[in-house]
Amino acid sequence: MFGEILHRVRERKPHIHCITNYVTANDCANILLASGGSPIMADCPEESAEITALCDGLLLNTGTLNPDKLSAMRKSGRIANELHHPVVLDPVGAGASRFRTESIRLLLNEIRIDVIRGNLSEIKALFCHETKSHGVDAVSSDRITEENLPEMRNLIKAIASEQNTVFAVTGQIDVIADKHQAYCIRNGCSMMKSVTGSGCQLSALTAAFITANPERIPESAAAAVCMMGVSGEIAQEHLAPYEGNASFRNRIIDAVYRMDAETLDRKADYQIFR
Amino acid sequence: MFGEILHRVRERKPHIHCITNYVTANDCANILLASGGSPIMADCPEESAEITALCDGLLLNTGTLNPDKLSAMRKSGRIANELHHPVVLDPVGAGASRFRTESIRLLLNEIRIDVIRGNLSEIKALFCHETKSHGVDAVSSDRITEENLPEMRNLIKAIASEQNTVFAVTGQIDVIADKHQAYCIRNGCSMMKSVTGSGCQLSALTAAFITANPERIPESAAAAVCMMGVSGEIAQEHLAPYEGNASFRNRIIDAVYRMDAETLDRKADYQIFR
Amino acid sequence: MFGEILHRVRERKPHIHCITNYVTANDCANILLASGGSPIMADCPEESAEITALCDGLLLNTGTLNPDKLSAMRKSGRIANELHHPVVLDPVGAGASRFRTESIRLLLNEIRIDVIRGNLSEIKALFCHETKSHGVDAVSSDRITEENLPEMRNLIKAIASEQNTVFAVTGQIDVIADKHQAYCIRNGCSMMKSVTGSGCQLSALTAAFITANPERIPESAAAAVCMMGVSGEIAQEHLAPYEGNASFRNRIIDAVYRMDAETLDRKADYQIFR
Repeated sequence: MFGEILHRVRERKPHIHCITNYVTANDCANILLASGGSPIMADCPEESAEITALCDGLLLNTGTLNPDKLSAMRKSGRIANELHHPVVLDPVGAGASRFRTESIRLLLNEIRIDVIRGNLSEIKALFCHETKSHGVDAVSSDRITEENLPEMRNLIKAIASEQNTVFAVTGQIDVIADKHQAYCIRNGCSMMKSVTGSGCQLSALTAAFITANPERIPESAAAAVCMMGVSGEIAQEHLAPYEGNASFRNRIIDAVYRMDAETLDRKADYQIFR
Repeated sequence: MFGEILHRVRERKPHIHCITNYVTANDCANILLASGGSPIMADCPEESAEITALCDGLLLNTGTLNPDKLSAMRKSGRIANELHHPVVLDPVGAGASRFRTESIRLLLNEIRIDVIRGNLSEIKALFCHETKSHGVDAVSSDRITEENLPEMRNLIKAIASEQNTVFAVTGQIDVIADKHQAYCIRNGCSMMKSVTGSGCQLSALTAAFITANPERIPESAAAAVCMMGVSGEIAQEHLAPYEGNASFRNRIIDAVYRMDAETLDRKADYQIFR
Repeated sequence: MFGEILHRVRERKPHIHCITNYVTANDCANILLASGGSPIMADCPEESAEITALCDGLLLNTGTLNPDKLSAMRKSGRIANELHHPVVLDPVGAGASRFRTESIRLLLNEIRIDVIRGNLSEIKALFCHETKSHGVDAVSSDRITEENLPEMRNLIKAIASEQNTVFAVTGQIDVIADKHQAYCIRNGCSMMKSVTGSGCQLSALTAAFITANPERIPESAAAAVCMMGVSGEIAQEHLAPYEGNASFRNRIIDAVYRMDAETLDRKADYQIFR
């Protein structure tokens, strides 16, 4: 199933308008190209809405945010919603500063987001003081582990239901959920934490996947997460003993470039809970 | 001949002031170093003119443009013209937004540009409604192919003549033309489209090449285009079966670093039309 | 001894707030991760102080400086000083423009800096008209060589004493000095000059090293410089004949990732002058 979703990305070659941070923009562009999509980076409010209108999908990543970038995101988000372009939000740094957190809340209030892709800390910073009744206070750690997985799965599903969108919360185990179902994915490897922006890259990939498959957004978000994890596994297999995180970064993107539907389906390791 | 031009770059080590986008700035800097040139990146209007004056040539790349960057470009362009420093313009995204297109027109009006390096869509967006009499309306596609090459060659030569500058229009076949002659170059490989900023990198290389060889600008622009294509071919030869666009990106820059005059001349595949 | 310092970085995993340029930000982030540290990039004045407070150390790199970034640096510097977080300044481009030089002087006046990491030209642009009495006028070149090493060592020690901080001046031979002592380091290789931002990366590494070892700052700065040089040597050993500066860049970061204390101590090539 995930292979079919990838196949569609390659076929439709979605153009993704990325408003993203300067630290990982190059990797995000290259991973989009590797997947079969096409990146257009533009982040000034003077043109962002027009650029969005030219593209098929929108990625909002709040790394290295500033007021101008925020203004561009708001304009692009509005147009994307009007044109029914899929929108992915990567709330990088939510909780790290008032400006960052409030800006992200503003985006969440103004723009209909199709997938929110982040780590558990970011998701909790944004949504958990409002969801205490769902047992958030009981969450002792910001990691998803085998032990707390049932609890985390329910929490993320509850937030997704409340926010009426899809969440892709990634970590050692990844949970992708909407109100109906949750995918738990066990692909990937721990070395991916040593690559700056592996999360940003995944968010870009997610944008390409859901834009090419708008009729099945939760599955496509799960497919993107799985694709990133499988690419990490393949990248690690090809790593020479003296190679480290910089070569690994390249090999992940390389693996995305070389991935075929059959390999993705064969290596995908996930369960669906309804 | 191209080998001699490369030799001069290595000898003169031109310092290139790059006002460019943040997506591909790192690759542009590394390809400049690989060629024998030296990059200085600075894009704030408070200092751009002074930085330009310290350098030997100027690159203006309009990716991720914003009003501050535009203001820096205008100041730097003026000084570069006063000091007779060669100037390359890469009109990234021309036609994609009013802000982008109008900003580029402003630069074209205010600054004498030595080489304009872009793809056919960008060049047409900027110059073709004014050149309808040259048969632009007949152009059905934005790609240069074997079939439309004679027509495209004449079109680009006509625009170059009208604008009184050198155009380097790159695609499957590259056409570099001024009013007197056109180079048609068939180096490169299709995988280069999968590397973000391969065009930006070529523009940076072009700036180094013409700055080190200011007395023969069209030939030097053609040499840079050829060098990029040959580097792509060499990069592909060294690619392992599991490697993709990220490793390929590195190997292109590596090939520029290792290129010698003899290899460049041997692998160069071009014709000159006068 | 340097191995022990590295060991502490791996153990303490310092979070470094980097306010840095967009050209090399990705490499700085990846080298920090490779060393065991963790980068947080944020450069807007609306949030920079809060981000600094969340981290353990601060890196100020003045590449692609602009007024907003400067304002963020001033706010972050003030908080870092209040919280006794170590601060590294990389005065990229000092002397290249009035804006750059004056902005750096402002930072030096307002913020207590623990280590200033730059090349000899930058250090001279900032400090040498005030230190003429130390023989600066006699310095004919901006390179540290075997011939002028004793003179340079004394000069840098004198400036360090006057400014009451640690200087890490890097080049063919590196000199790290405070008022009491000077380390002269001979690791590294000439190809490192062909990698954009190798200096920026070293400054990031230095921030991680001194933040994890705040009780021995000069030694830790020297260890970072040595680590970078040894990583360059190891990177060169693994370079295929067709590989150039782009692959070399990755292999340096890879070598940092794989470095162990024993290898660092074994390959370290330095002398201490008191």
